[in-house]
Amino acid sequence: MDVATYFPEVTRIAYEGKRSDNPLSFKYYNPDEIVLGKPMKEHLRFSVAYWHTFTLSGADPFGLPNMIRPWDGATGMDLAKRRVEAAFEFMTKLGVEYFCFHDRDIAPEGDTLRETNRNLDEIVALIKEYMQSTGIKLLWNTQNLFSNPRFAHGAATAPDADVFAYAAAQVKKSLEIAKELGAENYVFWGGREGYETLLNTDLKLELDNYARLLQMAVDYADEIGFTGQFLIEPKPKEPTKHQYDFDVQSGLAFLYHYGLKDRFKFNIEANHATLAGHTFQHELRFARIHGLLGSVDANQGDPLLGWDTDEFPTNLYETTLAMYEILLNGGLAPGGLNFDAKVRRASMTPIDLFYGHIAGMDSFARGLKVAAKLLEDRVFEREIEERYESYRTGIGKDIVEGRATLKSLESYVIDKRVTATRSGRQEVLLAKLNQYLLETE
Amino acid sequence: MDVATYFPEVTRIAYEGKRSDNPLSFKYYNPDEIVLGKPMKEHLRFSVAYWHTFTLSGADPFGLPNMIRPWDGATGMDLAKRRVEAAFEFMTKLGVEYFCFHDRDIAPEGDTLRETNRNLDEIVALIKEYMQSTGIKLLWNTQNLFSNPRFAHGAATAPDADVFAYAAAQVKKSLEIAKELGAENYVFWGGREGYETLLNTDLKLELDNYARLLQMAVDYADEIGFTGQFLIEPKPKEPTKHQYDFDVQSGLAFLYHYGLKDRFKFNIEANHATLAGHTFQHELRFARIHGLLGSVDANQGDPLLGWDTDEFPTNLYETTLAMYEILLNGGLAPGGLNFDAKVRRASMTPIDLFYGHIAGMDSFARGLKVAAKLLEDRVFEREIEERYESYRTGIGKDIVEGRATLKSLESYVIDKRVTATRSGRQEVLLAKLNQYLLETE
Amino acid sequence: MDVATYFPEVTRIAYEGKRSDNPLSFKYYNPDEIVLGKPMKEHLRFSVAYWHTFTLSGADPFGLPNMIRPWDGATGMDLAKRRVEAAFEFMTKLGVEYFCFHDRDIAPEGDTLRETNRNLDEIVALIKEYMQSTGIKLLWNTQNLFSNPRFAHGAATAPDADVFAYAAAQVKKSLEIAKELGAENYVFWGGREGYETLLNTDLKLELDNYARLLQMAVDYADEIGFTGQFLIEPKPKEPTKHQYDFDVQSGLAFLYHYGLKDRFKFNIEANHATLAGHTFQHELRFARIHGLLGSVDANQGDPLLGWDTDEFPTNLYETTLAMYEILLNGGLAPGGLNFDAKVRRASMTPIDLFYGHIAGMDSFARGLKVAAKLLEDRVFEREIEERYESYRTGIGKDIVEGRATLKSLESYVIDKRVTATRSGRQEVLLAKLNQYLLETE
Amino acid sequence: MDVATYFPEVTRIAYEGKRSDNPLSFKYYNPDEIVLGKPMKEHLRFSVAYWHTFTLSGADPFGLPNMIRPWDGATGMDLAKRRVEAAFEFMTKLGVEYFCFHDRDIAPEGDTLRETNRNLDEIVALIKEYMQSTGIKLLWNTQNLFSNPRFAHGAATAPDADVFAYAAAQVKKSLEIAKELGAENYVFWGGREGYETLLNTDLKLELDNYARLLQMAVDYADEIGFTGQFLIEPKPKEPTKHQYDFDVQSGLAFLYHYGLKDRFKFNIEANHATLAGHTFQHELRFARIHGLLGSVDANQGDPLLGWDTDEFPTNLYETTLAMYEILLNGGLAPGGLNFDAKVRRASMTPIDLFYGHIAGMDSFARGLKVAAKLLEDRVFEREIEERYESYRTGIGKDIVEGRATLKSLESYVIDKRVTATRSGRQEVLLAKLNQYLLETE
Repeated sequence: MDVATYFPEVTRIAYEGKRSDNPLSFKYYNPDEIVLGKPMKEHLRFSVAYWHTFTLSGADPFGLPNMIRPWDGATGMDLAKRRVEAAFEFMTKLGVEYFCFHDRDIAPEGDTLRETNRNLDEIVALIKEYMQSTGIKLLWNTQNLFSNPRFAHGAATAPDADVFAYAAAQVKKSLEIAKELGAENYVFWGGREGYETLLNTDLKLELDNYARLLQMAVDYADEIGFTGQFLIEPKPKEPTKHQYDFDVQSGLAFLYHYGLKDRFKFNIEANHATLAGHTFQHELRFARIHGLLGSVDANQGDPLLGWDTDEFPTNLYETTLAMYEILLNGGLAPGGLNFDAKVRRASMTPIDLFYGHIAGMDSFARGLKVAAKLLEDRVFEREIEERYESYRTGIGKDIVEGRATLKSLESYVIDKRVTATRSGRQEVLLAKLNQYLLETE
Repeated sequence: MDVATYFPEVTRIAYEGKRSDNPLSFKYYNPDEIVLGKPMKEHLRFSVAYWHTFTLSGADPFGLPNMIRPWDGATGMDLAKRRVEAAFEFMTKLGVEYFCFHDRDIAPEGDTLRETNRNLDEIVALIKEYMQSTGIKLLWNTQNLFSNPRFAHGAATAPDADVFAYAAAQVKKSLEIAKELGAENYVFWGGREGYETLLNTDLKLELDNYARLLQMAVDYADEIGFTGQFLIEPKPKEPTKHQYDFDVQSGLAFLYHYGLKDRFKFNIEANHATLAGHTFQHELRFARIHGLLGSVDANQGDPLLGWDTDEFPTNLYETTLAMYEILLNGGLAPGGLNFDAKVRRASMTPIDLFYGHIAGMDSFARGLKVAAKLLEDRVFEREIEERYESYRTGIGKDIVEGRATLKSLESYVIDKRVTATRSGRQEVLLAKLNQYLLETE
Repeated sequence: MDVATYFPEVTRIAYEGKRSDNPLSFKYYNPDEIVLGKPMKEHLRFSVAYWHTFTLSGADPFGLPNMIRPWDGATGMDLAKRRVEAAFEFMTKLGVEYFCFHDRDIAPEGDTLRETNRNLDEIVALIKEYMQSTGIKLLWNTQNLFSNPRFAHGAATAPDADVFAYAAAQVKKSLEIAKELGAENYVFWGGREGYETLLNTDLKLELDNYARLLQMAVDYADEIGFTGQFLIEPKPKEPTKHQYDFDVQSGLAFLYHYGLKDRFKFNIEANHATLAGHTFQHELRFARIHGLLGSVDANQGDPLLGWDTDEFPTNLYETTLAMYEILLNGGLAPGGLNFDAKVRRASMTPIDLFYGHIAGMDSFARGLKVAAKLLEDRVFEREIEERYESYRTGIGKDIVEGRATLKSLESYVIDKRVTATRSGRQEVLLAKLNQYLLETE
Repeated sequence: MDVATYFPEVTRIAYEGKRSDNPLSFKYYNPDEIVLGKPMKEHLRFSVAYWHTFTLSGADPFGLPNMIRPWDGATGMDLAKRRVEAAFEFMTKLGVEYFCFHDRDIAPEGDTLRETNRNLDEIVALIKEYMQSTGIKLLWNTQNLFSNPRFAHGAATAPDADVFAYAAAQVKKSLEIAKELGAENYVFWGGREGYETLLNTDLKLELDNYARLLQMAVDYADEIGFTGQFLIEPKPKEPTKHQYDFDVQSGLAFLYHYGLKDRFKFNIEANHATLAGHTFQHELRFARIHGLLGSVDANQGDPLLGWDTDEFPTNLYETTLAMYEILLNGGLAPGGLNFDAKVRRASMTPIDLFYGHIAGMDSFARGLKVAAKLLEDRVFEREIEERYESYRTGIGKDIVEGRATLKSLESYVIDKRVTATRSGRQEVLLAKLNQYLLETE
C-alpha cells in the first residue's frame, strides 16, 4: 500500500512553532509536548470526522456539489475503498490518531439491508487492516438514521414500525462494527428523532420508542461484549423543527425518565450548543458536573446564523474554555475531540482539508495551554473559593449540611441587614482571561 | 367600602357577542356558556397578575415611569391599600375569579424583614376580607427574590449564605400567606437563580442550594398543612444570562436529579417558551405528557424581539393550541390561566388595563371553543391514530410491548424494502386548523 | 396534448365554500367573487413557482431526495418536457394564471452556454405553446446564479471576471426569454451576491460590480424592448453569511447609491423579511411608502428556525396584513403573489402539491376579504387620522409645511407642559383585528 | 478643586505592561507608544460615556437600583455637580481625553424647559471650567429624547406635534451646548423614533418628520456656526419594536431619500450591529466604503441574548477587526471610541468602573497593534489583491471600466468553460488572524 497517492503535495505536518509562515505546519500543536504531566496529544485525542472530510460534496440548499477531490471518478465500492485509502493517508500525514464514522459514510447502500451489510463487511475489513498498520483508532462510530428517504418521519420515532425495525437493524450492525474495530465509544445523534409539527405527532409514543431503541442497543452491546461508552449527542433542531435531544439538560431528563442514565454520557458539539441558546462551555459544564461529559464534537457556529455551520474551531476563547472544562473533567478519555467540522463551500480544494484541521488543532492546542495555566495559577478557582466562602462556616455550613430549615433561617435574618455589596468582578475576570490568552508561554 | 372608586367609567364587563362594537365588552368570552360540559369560566380559570396590573410603572430600560393610575399620589402602606381596593374593583368588574401576587407586590418593604412581614400581615388581612366579600380566590402567590439589590447575585443560588437565609425566610412567610389565603398553588420563578458568567460560578453548589431551598419549602408546607400544588416556572434567561429553569425539560432534569419530581409541576409561560426556542404548545405538551402541566402564565412574546415582552395574548393560533393541550390535560385545575401580561408602555391610561384583559380573555375563549370543536371532531386525533397504526399490530406491537430485540428486528427487515411514502400532511392539517379557527360557531 | 396525464386523481379545484370537507376544494378562494370592485383573482394574481413545485427533490442538508413525482424516470430534456406538461396541467387544475421560473429550472445545462441556451430555446418554445393554449402568463422569470459550482464565490460579485461574464450572459439570455414569453416582471435575487468572510472580500468592488450588472441588464432590456418591471428580491443571508440585498432599506440604499432607483422595485418574500428581523408587513410597508412595492413571494417562515423554510403561507394574520398593504398599494400589478413555497419534506406525495397551494390560496383569499373589510370600515385609518391630527393645524401644520425652525419651536414650548397621555391603543387594535379576522363575511 | 475626593483608592492608571498583576494598571494600552507613526492615544481617542459611568443606577427590568456610588446622598443640582467633579476625577485618573453625554445626564429637568435649560447652563459652565483645567474634550453630546414619559410614542416621530416641538427645542439647546463646549461631533440616536405596531402608525409622516428635525438641526448648526460632524447612530430595536435607523444601510437609504447624506456620518455601536444581525466589522466596513464612518460606540453584546447588554469590549477578535477598519478609514477623527458600556449589575462597586474601562482600553490597544501589524504585513490585502486580479486586465478591466455589455460578455463566454476552483481560503485566513493576535509584539 502506498499511502502517498491522494495528497502528494503534503508531507507529514510538523510542529514548526508560532512564528512559522508555513500554512502546512502546526504553530501551537506539538503532540509530544508535556502539559500538566501528559503529552498534548493525550489531552486532546483529536479525531477526524469521516463524513465531512471524505464524503462532503459541497452541496448546500442552494448549490450543487463543488468539492474537488482526488478520489473523484470512482463510484460504489471502488469509491468507498479509495476513500478509506485517502482517509488513512490524510490522518497519518496530519498526525491524528482517531477517527469517527457513520455506517453510511464508509460503504454504499445496497438493494437490501443484507446487501448493504455485506458492503460494510468488506470495507470494515479494509479499515481494520489500515488501523492495524497505522495504529489509528476508532474514537466512535454511529448509524446514519437520517439521510435515507425512509427516515423522513424519523427512525426510532417514526410513525411506521417497519422504519423502527430498520433503524434497529442498522444499530445492531453498527454495534457489531464497533466491537470489531474496537470503538472506544458509540454515539446516538437523533437527527430526525423529533417532530415537524405537533399536529400530527404522538409525542409520548415517539419518546417511549426512542428509549426502547436505546435500551435494545444497551442490551445488545452487553450481549456481544461491546464495552465502549454510549454517548448521546444533543442538538435542538435541524433538520427537524425540534429534535428531542435538545441540549444536555433535555437529554438528562430523558435519561432519568427512562432509566438510562447509568449507561449514557454526552457527546457535546459546540455548534449544537449555540443553536440551543447556550455557550459551548455551558453544555460542557452541565455535562461535567453531572458526571456525564463523555466526548466532544469540536467545531464552531456563527452566532449570527441559525443553522449548523460546522466550521472548524478557531475561536480561542471557545477552545480555551472548552479545554478548561475538559481538564476539570480529568480529560475526555475514552472520548476525544472529534472535528465535526467542514471546510467552507468556497474552500473547495483538497489542501483546504489540511488547512481546516491544522487551524482547529492549533486552536485547541493553544486553548489547552492557556487553560492549563489558568488552572495551575488557580485564577478562577481562587475567585470562586473566596466568593462562596460563606458556605464553609456558620449558617452557610448549616445550609449545605442539611441542618437549616425555613424556620431557623428566618430566625437568623429576621432583624438582620442583608445586602449584596461584593462585586462579581466579571470585567476583571474577562481581562484576566485575555491576559492569559495572550501571555501564556 | 365603595368598590367603584378607581374605575368609575367602567361597569361590569358583559358578554355582548362577536358583533359588538363596544370595546368594553366580551365578544367571545361568555363565562357561563357550556363547552364540553363545563362553563367556560371553569375551563379557563382566568387570573389577574397583581404586578403587571396594579404596580406597573411603565419604566423600561430607556424610559421613566409613565403609567397614569387612579391610585397615584399615595405612598407606602396607603398606596398598598389603595391598590388592594382597586384590584378587587378591577377583578370584580372584569369578572375574573382568581389573582396572583408576589410578596413584594402587595406591601412595601420595611427596614427589616420583621417590619416587612408586619406590613404583609396588615395587607393580607385586608385582602382576605375582600376575598371573602367578593368570592375571588388566590390562584397562587410567590416570593419576589429578584428585585431587591440583595439578590444581585441570586437568591437560593447566591454566593452569600446570608442571602440564601433571607430568601428562605421570604419563602416561609409567603407559604404562610398561601396557607392563610387558601392559595391553590405556590410558584417558584427563579429570576436570578442562574449565572452571569461561568468564570465566577460554582455551578454545582448553586444547583444543590437551589434544590435545598425547594426541599425546605416542601417540608415547611407539610409542617403547616399547606396543600396547594407547588409549581416551577421555567424561563431561559433575562434578567440573568442563563436561568437554571431554562425550560420544561431542564426543569424536569433538575427535579429528577434532586428527587423533587413528585412535589412539583410546571407553570408554563408562553413568552418564556419562545425565549427558550420553543413554541408555547411545545412546552405545554412536554409538561402534559409527563403529567406535570400545572398552570399557565398567559401572555405572548414578539418572535422578533429577544426579551420578555409579556404582551396580552391575542394570537388565536397560540390560544387555540394552548387550550387544545389543556383540554387534553383534563383542564388545569387547581392551576389556571394567569395573565402575566402587561399593557404596552404606550397604552398608559387606566382603561387600557381593561382592554388588555378583554383582548386576552376573548382570545382564550375563542381558543377554547375552537380546540373543543377540534377535539370533538377528532380532527388531529384521527390523523394520529391512523399515522401510528402500525404500532398496534405485528412487529409494531412487539416493539411497544417489549418483545422485540435488535436481533428480531434485523431478521424482520434484512431483506425487506422499507420506505416512507405516506405523507405527514402538515399542509392539510394547517388548512384544517384555519378552517376550524374561522368556522367554529 | 392530454393535460390529464400527471395528476389523474385531481380535477379542476373548485370553490366549495367554508364548510367543505373536501381537501381538494377552495374554502375561501372564489376567483370571480367581487371584492372592492374587482374579482378576487385580479387582486391576488397567484403564481406557481416552478422550482418548488416541479423540480424539488426533497433533499435537505441531512437528507437525500425523497419526493415522489409522476414525472420521475425521465432525464435531461425529456424530464424537462414532462415537467412543462405537468406544470401546465397543475396550474390549469389549480386555476392559477401565472407562473415564475429560473432559467435552470426549465432546462438542463449543456456542456457550454451555447448548448444550454439551445436547450432553453427548445423548452421556451414549448412553454410558449402551452401559455397560448392555456392563457397562463409568466409573472416573472429570473436567472439562477447560485446553484452551479462556478458561482461558489458569487456571480456579479465573484472575484473572477470570467464568472461575472458568465452571469451576465445568463442574464442576457433570460431577458430574451422574458421578452419572448411576455414576462410582466424580471427578478434579481442575488443568492450568492454577498460574502462569507470580510477577510477575503473587496466589498466596494463587489458592490460596484453588482450595480454594473444591473445597469447592463437595464440597458439591454431597453435595447431589446423588454418593458417588464425589474425587481430586486431582498434576503439577508443563506446561502451566504451576508447577502447584499439584506432587506428593503438596504436595497434602497444600494439603488440610490448607484442611480438605479427609477428602474427597480422590490419583490418581497415573507420568509426573507423574518430572517432579516422584520415582519412581512414591515417590508411591504417600507417598499410601499417609497413607491417600490412590486411583487410578493408568498410563503412563511418559522420564527423559531434560522433558515428559509419556505412554507406555504397559512398564517391568517400575515396574509391579512399583507393584503392590507397590497390594497393600500393599489394592488400589485404587474406583480403578483408568487408561491415561493415548498411542501414539507415529509409531505412527499404529489397530491401534497395541491394541498399546499390550496392552503396558501385560501389563506390569502381570506386575508384579502378581511383586509378589504378593515379598509372599508376604516378601522385603522380612522385611528391613525385621529392620532396624528395635531399635524393638520397650528404648530403641527407649520412643521409639516416647513415653516418651523428649532427657534420657533423652542419659543412654542419653552414654558409649556408637554406630555403623552393619549394611549396608542395597541391592545384594542389587536382585538379589533381578531374580530375582523373571525367575523368578516 | 480637589480631584481626589471620589475615588481615593485609585491613583492615575499607568501602563505596567502585559505581565502586570495589578488590576488597576494597563497591560496593553500605552498612550504615547507610537503605532504606525502616531501615539496610541491618537489612534484610539477613547471617550467615557457619562450616562453609564456617572448616572447608572443598576436597575434592570427585574431589579431595583443597586449601584454604590461615592456621590450617593446628594440630589438635584447638588448631585449633578458632584457627578461632574467625579467625572473629571475619573477621566483624569483613567487618562481618557474625551467624554460624551446626553443633555439629561448632566442636569436635572425642571418644571419647564426654561427651567431645565437654566439647570443645564449652570452645569455646562462647570463642565467648561473642568474641561479647561484638565484638557479633557467633548467628543460629542446629544439630546435624550427617550426617557421622559412625553416621548412614549416617539419624539420627532411622535403623533403629537407638541412633542415634536419639545424635541426640537431640546436639540436646539443641545446644539448650543455643543458649540459652547466645542463638541467635535453631534449625535442623533433615535431610541424611540420607530414604531410599536404598524396598526396605529403613519409611517411616511413619521419618517418625513424625522428628516425634518434633522434638517432643522443642520440649519441651526449652520446658523450658530457649530461645525462638528453630525452622526446618526443606528440601532434596530429596543426600546421600540422597530427603530427607523435599523443599521448603516437603512440609515443610508434614509439619508439619500431625504437629501441629508452630505451632512451626516455614522456612529457605529458594536452591540447595535449584532442586534441587527451584523458583525461589528460589517457595519464599520459598510460605513467606511461609503465614506461615512464617523465614530464608534465601543462595547459588546452577548450573541445569545436579544437585548443591548452594553458590555465593556473585551473580545479581541472584535477589537482587532474594528481597529483594522478604523485604520483603513484613516482613523476616526474627529470621531473616537466612546465606551458606551456599563459594568454588569453584579459589579456594583465604584472600582469596577475602572476595571471595566481598563479592560476595554487594553482590548482596543491590543486590537490596534494586531491590526497595525496585519496591515503592515498586508496579510489580507495581499490575499484580496490576488483574489480579484482578474479585474485588472482583459475582460475584467472592461467590466470595471464600463466597456462591457451583456452582449460582449456573452460572446466572451458562450463556448468557454468557466469554473470556480480557487479556494477562498477562509480557514487559512482565520488561522493567520489567530497567529497575529497571539504573536504580535
